[in-house]
Amino acid sequence: MARTAKGALRLTYAKSGVNSRTRARSLTPLLAAVTYRPPRSHGRALGPSGHYAGLIRIGRETIAITTDTVGTKVLLAEQLGRYEEIGEDAVAINVNDLAAVGARAAGLVDVINCARPEPETFAALGRGINRGLAAAQCALLGGETAVVPSLLRAIDVGGTAIGFFPDGRRPITGDRIRTGDRILGIPSAGFHANGYTLLRALIRRKGLDLRRPRPGARLPLGVELLRPTRTYCRATEAVADSPYVRGFAHITGGGVRNLLRLNARVAYVLDRWPDLAGAFAWVRELGEIEDRELFQTFNMGIGFAVVVARPGVGPTLRSLARAGFGDAVEIGRIAQGKGVQLPSWGLSYSEYS
Amino acid sequence: MARTAKGALRLTYAKSGVNSRTRARSLTPLLAAVTYRPPRSHGRALGPSGHYAGLIRIGRETIAITTDTVGTKVLLAEQLGRYEEIGEDAVAINVNDLAAVGARAAGLVDVINCARPEPETFAALGRGINRGLAAAQCALLGGETAVVPSLLRAIDVGGTAIGFFPDGRRPITGDRIRTGDRILGIPSAGFHANGYTLLRALIRRKGLDLRRPRPGARLPLGVELLRPTRTYCRATEAVADSPYVRGFAHITGGGVRNLLRLNARVAYVLDRWPDLAGAFAWVRELGEIEDRELFQTFNMGIGFAVVVARPGVGPTLRSLARAGFGDAVEIGRIAQGKGVQLPSWGLSYSEYS
Repeated sequence: MARTAKGALRLTYAKSGVNSRTRARSLTPLLAAVTYRPPRSHGRALGPSGHYAGLIRIGRETIAITTDTVGTKVLLAEQLGRYEEIGEDAVAINVNDLAAVGARAAGLVDVINCARPEPETFAALGRGINRGLAAAQCALLGGETAVVPSLLRAIDVGGTAIGFFPDGRRPITGDRIRTGDRILGIPSAGFHANGYTLLRALIRRKGLDLRRPRPGARLPLGVELLRPTRTYCRATEAVADSPYVRGFAHITGGGVRNLLRLNARVAYVLDRWPDLAGAFAWVRELGEIEDRELFQTFNMGIGFAVVVARPGVGPTLRSLARAGFGDAVEIGRIAQGKGVQLPSWGLSYSEYS
Repeated sequence: MARTAKGALRLTYAKSGVNSRTRARSLTPLLAAVTYRPPRSHGRALGPSGHYAGLIRIGRETIAITTDTVGTKVLLAEQLGRYEEIGEDAVAINVNDLAAVGARAAGLVDVINCARPEPETFAALGRGINRGLAAAQCALLGGETAVVPSLLRAIDVGGTAIGFFPDGRRPITGDRIRTGDRILGIPSAGFHANGYTLLRALIRRKGLDLRRPRPGARLPLGVELLRPTRTYCRATEAVADSPYVRGFAHITGGGVRNLLRLNARVAYVLDRWPDLAGAFAWVRELGEIEDRELFQTFNMGIGFAVVVARPGVGPTLRSLARAGFGDAVEIGRIAQGKGVQLPSWGLSYSEYS
């Protein structure tokens, strides 16, 4: 199914400046050097590492922690002079990773590094952070602002969020997923905050005007692409304590390969992936990016997945609808085997990196 | 006592590119926009905000969280091609802020943003992170590495740490400090990770060679200036449960003004500040930076302060010595009034910003 526009070079994430393999090769020596394990009196770190959030047992509570930055989406915000969406992203990308292990969001600290602090920019970031916190029902616990013109080409916005497991809830890591389970998907609100280096390369190559709508859209392209990340915390809070629920996946950087972070001993067959619509259909129509790259870089319309036991499909969809996620749909099933498969696209992935 | 070298412009932190008042003016609209308060079922954020760490009550535990980046010290590391110290800094600057509220360090997530991931750099950062974790008795819970050449001029290294209050310990915020208390100081290991924009401006102006030792030193200047932040966690763990201890201050960005973050209703009279030695005496001798700027930018030899009830001076110094901090000394006292005073330097500060 892969195709490219005639005569055009194919754009990939690696060509646009990001190479996840190089990054993985660098992380390995860092993690290999960190051999220290603290005494039990300082808490007990829980595996598995490499999941969406770090987990640590502190006294009588299990705390989940996750950290992420908005990345190069800020360059689009700079071009348009709009920062509210970026503020909301900084919260959402972090709390969604908490949601993906079944943790309830509790607090966030933000980090804003900039060359020059503009009060208007910070006010807009604050409004966006406030919207993100309200969506996640999370408190701002502090933050760090550094003015470091010698380090930065653009503003850098990120944060760290902590969450917990209320009333005896356990972390949901996907270890209970088994053959026959069903995969539900909750639609995204656009590209969220991943793949923007590739999107910007696409905009440059095609000479697109951010001030005009793409064909079929009403909002200017720049505004459409800035749309903030959807927050899935209320979705997971609605279903995390259900006995049907066996795994969550935040479809973020790495695209559908994020499902591989759950249980590695089964296959994720996405045979009911919704037809591409809106900006996702448009990006594919531009013909510069192969399908394989599209699904391993962007969320392609589904931003969060919930794996449930087969009898749980109906009850879980109803619970999600009551929590404001009436657009959730069944997108696939768990089968024997390994990897992520998109049969109607002729795609399969065996590695998350 | 302020002086400058004849004919030389005075260097200040604002002139070197960092203006904390501008930053404060930007933070105000951000914080004003964040009005959302989550329901109690999502934890209970505790004041006072603006202290070294955010505090939140989660279930039966109180969690402290702090976030910070190494800042422009990385530019020195880049010049010298040495990153291990930076890795240790990334841990120490965060866990020391936990120590400053009396929290026991439990876990850290690191954030490394770079233009190009070099395995050797990451291995060195990992070795430093490991040393920092061992000093703080803290676990690495995760991290984020972003390859964002379009955002960065240099590598950006930071992290977020969480801690807790074991066995009924309460957060130590300085509210119990009163007139007559004594201030103990624990020496720093150099400039730690603050004031490097100013230090680099000084090096440029004086045309100093980083490969040669400064007068009176043995190590090359660059290596001396890279020396990692001292970790004070074992010091606070040794004395936090003592009834004598009433406040901690991490002397970080903002210099001695950090004491103002404790109790604002008393004066901090630093009438026994140790004579400047080593690199601190040398920077002052260079004569480019006014005394007022020195003490409000750098730690000037004392990296951490402990406020104790007067009868607690001897017992606390002995406890600190047993924990490996035999170099702690009495540096001042709490008096009626307000602000931080260094009488023998003719300096006083009334605002932390």
